[in-house]
Amino acid sequence: MVVFDQSADMRTQVAIVGAGPAGLLLSHLLWLDGIDSVVLETRDRAYVERRVRAGVCEAPTVDLLREVGLADRLDREGLPHHGIFLRFDNENHRVPLTDLTGRTLTVYGQQEIVKDMIAARLAAGGDIRFSVSDVVLHDLTDEQPSVTFRDADGVSHEVRCDVIAGCDGFHGVSRGSVPEGTLHTYDHVYPFAWLGILAKAPPSNEELIYCHSSRGFALHSMRSPDLTRLYLQVDPDDVIADWPDARVWDELHQRFGFALHEGPVVDRLLAPMRSFVVEPMRYGRLFLAGDAAHIVPPTGAKGMNLAVADVRVLSRALAALLHSGRTDLVESYSDTCLRRVWRAEHFSYFMTTMLHRAPGADPFQQRLQLSQLRYTVSSTAAATSLAENYVGLPFA
Amino acid sequence: MVVFDQSADMRTQVAIVGAGPAGLLLSHLLWLDGIDSVVLETRDRAYVERRVRAGVCEAPTVDLLREVGLADRLDREGLPHHGIFLRFDNENHRVPLTDLTGRTLTVYGQQEIVKDMIAARLAAGGDIRFSVSDVVLHDLTDEQPSVTFRDADGVSHEVRCDVIAGCDGFHGVSRGSVPEGTLHTYDHVYPFAWLGILAKAPPSNEELIYCHSSRGFALHSMRSPDLTRLYLQVDPDDVIADWPDARVWDELHQRFGFALHEGPVVDRLLAPMRSFVVEPMRYGRLFLAGDAAHIVPPTGAKGMNLAVADVRVLSRALAALLHSGRTDLVESYSDTCLRRVWRAEHFSYFMTTMLHRAPGADPFQQRLQLSQLRYTVSSTAAATSLAENYVGLPFA
Repeated sequence: MVVFDQSADMRTQVAIVGAGPAGLLLSHLLWLDGIDSVVLETRDRAYVERRVRAGVCEAPTVDLLREVGLADRLDREGLPHHGIFLRFDNENHRVPLTDLTGRTLTVYGQQEIVKDMIAARLAAGGDIRFSVSDVVLHDLTDEQPSVTFRDADGVSHEVRCDVIAGCDGFHGVSRGSVPEGTLHTYDHVYPFAWLGILAKAPPSNEELIYCHSSRGFALHSMRSPDLTRLYLQVDPDDVIADWPDARVWDELHQRFGFALHEGPVVDRLLAPMRSFVVEPMRYGRLFLAGDAAHIVPPTGAKGMNLAVADVRVLSRALAALLHSGRTDLVESYSDTCLRRVWRAEHFSYFMTTMLHRAPGADPFQQRLQLSQLRYTVSSTAAATSLAENYVGLPFA
Repeated sequence: MVVFDQSADMRTQVAIVGAGPAGLLLSHLLWLDGIDSVVLETRDRAYVERRVRAGVCEAPTVDLLREVGLADRLDREGLPHHGIFLRFDNENHRVPLTDLTGRTLTVYGQQEIVKDMIAARLAAGGDIRFSVSDVVLHDLTDEQPSVTFRDADGVSHEVRCDVIAGCDGFHGVSRGSVPEGTLHTYDHVYPFAWLGILAKAPPSNEELIYCHSSRGFALHSMRSPDLTRLYLQVDPDDVIADWPDARVWDELHQRFGFALHEGPVVDRLLAPMRSFVVEPMRYGRLFLAGDAAHIVPPTGAKGMNLAVADVRVLSRALAALLHSGRTDLVESYSDTCLRRVWRAEHFSYFMTTMLHRAPGADPFQQRLQLSQLRYTVSSTAAATSLAENYVGLPFA
């Protein structure tokens, strides 16, 4: 037995592990439903508010954020997008997302959403514990599970609760707390990575450009009118040191085939490309949501949006359980989420394989990519299919 | 110099090698344009009229056959189809092709089309030489190429001409007559084959059923109200002897998961699954059309339809060349055809990879297939995309 300095000092209905978009939104939605939660986060507040990740919000994500009062700043500062470009054979081809679906995308950084959610939770008296350590989940199959952790001052605590929500991402402790052999894992590693830079330069185009080239994939995106985000497909074994700025710009110019606005590089990242899903997304009283349960490659811009979709389903299921003892929605939680998860996994795979140069791909497959790209921009049905996935299929 | 028994005894405008659908239709279309041709075929007439191949005619194919007077019997005996089924998770899901596209498919055997074309050509005085041998193409880059061959009686002939059309299929001599290194070859062999049977039994469903199962792909098709055509994905190394009738029926029942109508098996085939394209589809005065230039796996039912599309473009190009010396259409022949060829290659690849169990595929990819299938039958855009390809995109 571990001796806790202040054992059993806390009681809440839902212990939420992780203060990313999934955990924070869940806490907010539960609060709106009159359900208490405590959010435990190993990083400090400044870190999570600056952690740059996704930037493209689906229409259903924005709808939900508006519905629950979290979109004021997003509506002021987010960049509405009505189309994306597919670039191949050195020509831009626009996919008019809004014309095809009636919906709009919003480019608004995940870290901004996190800031807004933290501010909203704290303003409402929400309980978020930053800089915690030694988080351990207990008694997951009991009616009263618990989470132990050490706070920022090193003091040990136990949170007893009805339910634990594992919202702590791919590398978090939640998924690993499920007994070995209980979850089925689906894993696919792509044979390339993304090198991303953030440059102090105005975007070279008002919209995103997904660029297919014989040298590999490149993506033109943006964070603001003064910040351009650019990505290159690179070898999965490359390290950032392999890509000094001059090489990055040269390669970008060669792949895009036109002059991009250049500027000082203020951030660099190297991201592996992976698809990962566990089934089911639940073990007893532990519910996994967001990256803790599934990873998509970034090509479809679905990671954060899936986390939002999971949490919407979870908050309703937990409200039914905790308010009235109804178990049907918690029983169906995993299946409901997994339908959207696998849709997003397929869409991300579709976008990834259509646009990237697979090492060792035969020339036949390169020709297929070009045919698929040409078809996608020339068929209303094919363009609509891409568009409806990209702007986000309606929530179930 | 070869000495010919009756050297230079023939002169025509277009020497057509091969009396399959491509060669026969070309001869017919040229005749309508007032252009002479001679068709050379190594097989005898009975063989080509009984050679069972494709059975699904795209809407644009039927439109063309009607336009040029070759569809009287097709209109009487062909089976109009307004939808296909995708079967997965043991349930049928209909893709309503006609509702989605306004177009109709026609199931009518390729050998019936060949019979109709031969009858039409002979009735119009067309020159088709069956059972020829030793076909050799000469002087392809000259203004006056020629073809030498030996007729059914062993007598040698030379046909001098303006143009040669290579319509002699994947194994024909035409493509091989182009100097090594001139054509670029794209080749992709799929890691499975199709075992097909023709059974004297009424079809078990009025429409085609493309069946995904954990044991592999199966297809339910038909030739007539009394003849069912059934296919199984099998190992590419299998031989027909590996599949006695009892095993075939047992496997079909397991994959489809419902009781099929059984009956005596009157024909069996084992077909490898391959994609193959040469570029360009022309060398000097030799124009390749149909299977001589490209092969698709049968999953998309595109092989014969592509041959028809090629020949339509070729007949117009040759009419422009031979009537008025215009070279633009013969110059663009290959590029024009290849756009549709690559569209069909991609569609066939899409259908094939969505439905077959790839040996060594990870469980992730099987889940992607199911997500793709569910999406295809639940999204109007995705279903329309499949449907418009399946019924045939409009001719350019």
